[in-house]
Amino acid sequence: MTSTARPQSRSYFEATAKFADGSDTPRAFMDRCIGDIERLDGDVQAFVVTGLDAARAAADESTARWAAGKQLSPIDGMPIGVKDIMETADFPTEQGSPLFKGWKGARDCAAVAALREAGAIMVGKTVTTEFAATHPGVTRNPWDLERTPGGSSSGSAASVAAGMVPGALGSQVIGSTIRPASYCGIFGYKPSVGGINRGGSFDGFSQSSTGSGSAASVAAGMVPGALGSQVIGSTIRPASYCGIFGYKPSVGGINRGGSFDGFSQSSTGILAASLAETWSLTREITSRAGGDAGYPGVMGPMDLPSARKPSKVAILQTAGWAKATDQAKAELQRAVDAMKAAGIEVADRDSDSAVAGVEDAIANAMKLSMDINAWEGRWPLNTYYRDMDPSGLSESAQGRLKQAVSMSQEEFVDLLAERERVRGVYAGLKGTFDATITLSAPGAAPKGLEWTGDPLFTVHTSLISMPTLSLPVLEDEGLPLGLQVVGFTGEDADLFAVAGSLLALFEG
Amino acid sequence: MTSTARPQSRSYFEATAKFADGSDTPRAFMDRCIGDIERLDGDVQAFVVTGLDAARAAADESTARWAAGKQLSPIDGMPIGVKDIMETADFPTEQGSPLFKGWKGARDCAAVAALREAGAIMVGKTVTTEFAATHPGVTRNPWDLERTPGGSSSGSAASVAAGMVPGALGSQVIGSTIRPASYCGIFGYKPSVGGINRGGSFDGFSQSSTGSGSAASVAAGMVPGALGSQVIGSTIRPASYCGIFGYKPSVGGINRGGSFDGFSQSSTGILAASLAETWSLTREITSRAGGDAGYPGVMGPMDLPSARKPSKVAILQTAGWAKATDQAKAELQRAVDAMKAAGIEVADRDSDSAVAGVEDAIANAMKLSMDINAWEGRWPLNTYYRDMDPSGLSESAQGRLKQAVSMSQEEFVDLLAERERVRGVYAGLKGTFDATITLSAPGAAPKGLEWTGDPLFTVHTSLISMPTLSLPVLEDEGLPLGLQVVGFTGEDADLFAVAGSLLALFEG
Repeated sequence: MTSTARPQSRSYFEATAKFADGSDTPRAFMDRCIGDIERLDGDVQAFVVTGLDAARAAADESTARWAAGKQLSPIDGMPIGVKDIMETADFPTEQGSPLFKGWKGARDCAAVAALREAGAIMVGKTVTTEFAATHPGVTRNPWDLERTPGGSSSGSAASVAAGMVPGALGSQVIGSTIRPASYCGIFGYKPSVGGINRGGSFDGFSQSSTGSGSAASVAAGMVPGALGSQVIGSTIRPASYCGIFGYKPSVGGINRGGSFDGFSQSSTGILAASLAETWSLTREITSRAGGDAGYPGVMGPMDLPSARKPSKVAILQTAGWAKATDQAKAELQRAVDAMKAAGIEVADRDSDSAVAGVEDAIANAMKLSMDINAWEGRWPLNTYYRDMDPSGLSESAQGRLKQAVSMSQEEFVDLLAERERVRGVYAGLKGTFDATITLSAPGAAPKGLEWTGDPLFTVHTSLISMPTLSLPVLEDEGLPLGLQVVGFTGEDADLFAVAGSLLALFEG
Repeated sequence: MTSTARPQSRSYFEATAKFADGSDTPRAFMDRCIGDIERLDGDVQAFVVTGLDAARAAADESTARWAAGKQLSPIDGMPIGVKDIMETADFPTEQGSPLFKGWKGARDCAAVAALREAGAIMVGKTVTTEFAATHPGVTRNPWDLERTPGGSSSGSAASVAAGMVPGALGSQVIGSTIRPASYCGIFGYKPSVGGINRGGSFDGFSQSSTGSGSAASVAAGMVPGALGSQVIGSTIRPASYCGIFGYKPSVGGINRGGSFDGFSQSSTGILAASLAETWSLTREITSRAGGDAGYPGVMGPMDLPSARKPSKVAILQTAGWAKATDQAKAELQRAVDAMKAAGIEVADRDSDSAVAGVEDAIANAMKLSMDINAWEGRWPLNTYYRDMDPSGLSESAQGRLKQAVSMSQEEFVDLLAERERVRGVYAGLKGTFDATITLSAPGAAPKGLEWTGDPLFTVHTSLISMPTLSLPVLEDEGLPLGLQVVGFTGEDADLFAVAGSLLALFEG
């Protein structure tokens, strides 16, 4: 096993306690983070781009605010990594795609705008898989450089795990926050669907392309070799004014930023060094930016909800069980034993028919999820294919379009109905159970960087919208493994309260 | 009154019956439409841009398909106007804003992509108010050139009313489809929220801006005078490569196209020459593109549902009643009398406490709607204001941002709860009533072009998501006035069935 030193995440809240007497400062904290970025990121490659001078300057301003007792929030000065599908006013947004090399907009996404209002500092953009889908980025797992950090929030998870930043933004439509959190040994949180405003975040393949912007990219020499070449009249004018050859832009030639340009089950997620920071980041965002349009957004106290010991929890095997390693299964049993020892009642598919019903209902979650995503991605793939350069669509995207075109609206409506049915079955646990518990992944991060791992343990929570947390308390092969604690839709604060109680069982 | 000849809308379905024997053709129909565009649009100014040669060529292809009995759908060859907030692969998308002069993307919005798959022909882009909000465009009402056509779907309504096209795409977040339909004497339809896929349509102010694309626009000479001038580092690189001065783009410097980059209560709408065409356009879109992500989209038969005589309808005065003209009130009474004569039971706030309850519940619909839109527009206005050029934001947009910043998430949640409460009160009519009936506007189109008219009769349907139709069967001041027929959420097909029956009362 090729490994750096055992990675150590870095909590901001442990430092802020010392800001009042000046024995620590946001600037000193930032310098420690930057030190680890400079020391480790050559190997880990969590960041696409950083802005360290600006981060230091912002940390000085934060230091002054804390010294004056005028900090903007508890996360004032907190260094943050931003998944590179989310727009920031200062950095490019490359989406893990060569088509977007160097592309940048001029605005912050909703979550970043809110974080800045709270005084947090965007240190840089973190590596994502291509379009937050499956094609992996360059990031390595800080626990073992020969292993994947998980995906698609690869760099966000790795940067937090390595102590480069105490918190980062991610996203999840299938398993892209919880799985990398598990593999990297940090806290990961996917809210109830709609819980964190996705404005300005590209949480799916459904980006668009524009002629003029692409022309500018080419003129700027940003993407010389990766673009399509078919000429259409519509792009010739700007191209000629920019002094380049007219061309038909490939898909994704310019970023569009409509956060809802994605799927009905995608969410922005949070990765952080502690449960308290995970919650605070969430609330500092949602209190300012709310949720998606039409959604209230995650509500609750601004500080971590008080721990609440659950009376009864359900253990779910999910479709992932068949892939789980023996040690992972044993680790889940260890968690069960700890909960039982603490007086928590534990049920599973064998002991409780309602739990068995949920297991049956979610067994097909992956296929259901992929089919829903396919129909919802029919547009704009259809116009990209017809009106742009089909060769700019990956084989996988063309496959999804082919699938979508073969589907009917009636089939999609059936899928939605099935999703609602599954949601109803799961909701039936409410009242009897305080949470459901499962693994966050089938085991430790797989070896190799060509596959970001199996999302079978997470997809059901995205499919049917429950809030979920990965707690870094289990292990497999001497590497981290997450314990996944799943709540009920819209009751995100209560999930954190329950998780806080469970976490204490492992920390004690 | 300055007027063209009495305008006459032009039905495609009246023509298609003659396509089989060759006594009429899609090309001949297109030529008649183009004739009216050339004859009338100098005065009416419904179109921002047209592509008449391409339209003729596409009509020839359609003619060949019909001759071979291989038409792609009943709307194969149908000339369509597209509201200029919706992207098409062939035309610019200017959004009624000088900032977008000449801007174009390279893709079709979801609805246009679907219409093209069905063989329909996009004749051009129709004038919209600025960002589909209140600042009017240049279009005049074909019934009286000194009057507004309504807004924001101004050009779409006028083009259909004048017979330039038999159908057009619009949108509505407050009243932007139903009101112009009323003023222009044509059919207008706003579906249940989520009913027609909004992908690629800018149905709100919430557009974004990008450096590189804006740079290209400037390099292309498209928007020389209307842009901000503050230089920031982020846009200098593409700017310098394009041979222009670096600049900080104004809001809206480049179109983003995320259709959900808008509000939770916005919808794509349809304007057409007949009820049957209104329905067919809807279903030809939704059967291919569905609704918004997560929504089934409008379902039902592909052809106009059979007319169904309602047993009982409710007359709603709404908050618009105080503004309604005496003749408009008399016209609504004429409709009531016709329904009663046909054996339809009619209730109102005086005769039925449930109807009175709905009147009370929707009385505040305008303020509630504006407040919800304000919070949902906090982002991206906040980053536009902070990170771009504040002077590029209109006074009205700055006012909305100021309002949004003064709001809390808790207040927004209260607004959502109130919206749900109103929705529940309205839903209580279901089962007892087949539809609710009201005016589409307080009277004829107001004189002048500086104001697009009052949406007080329509806002409740957008607020709480019901499908609604404007039937061109009433009049005021010798000008058209719509009878608004409102159904129940998700039951759009039944609304058309009921509306078909009511329409017959006026046509008989």
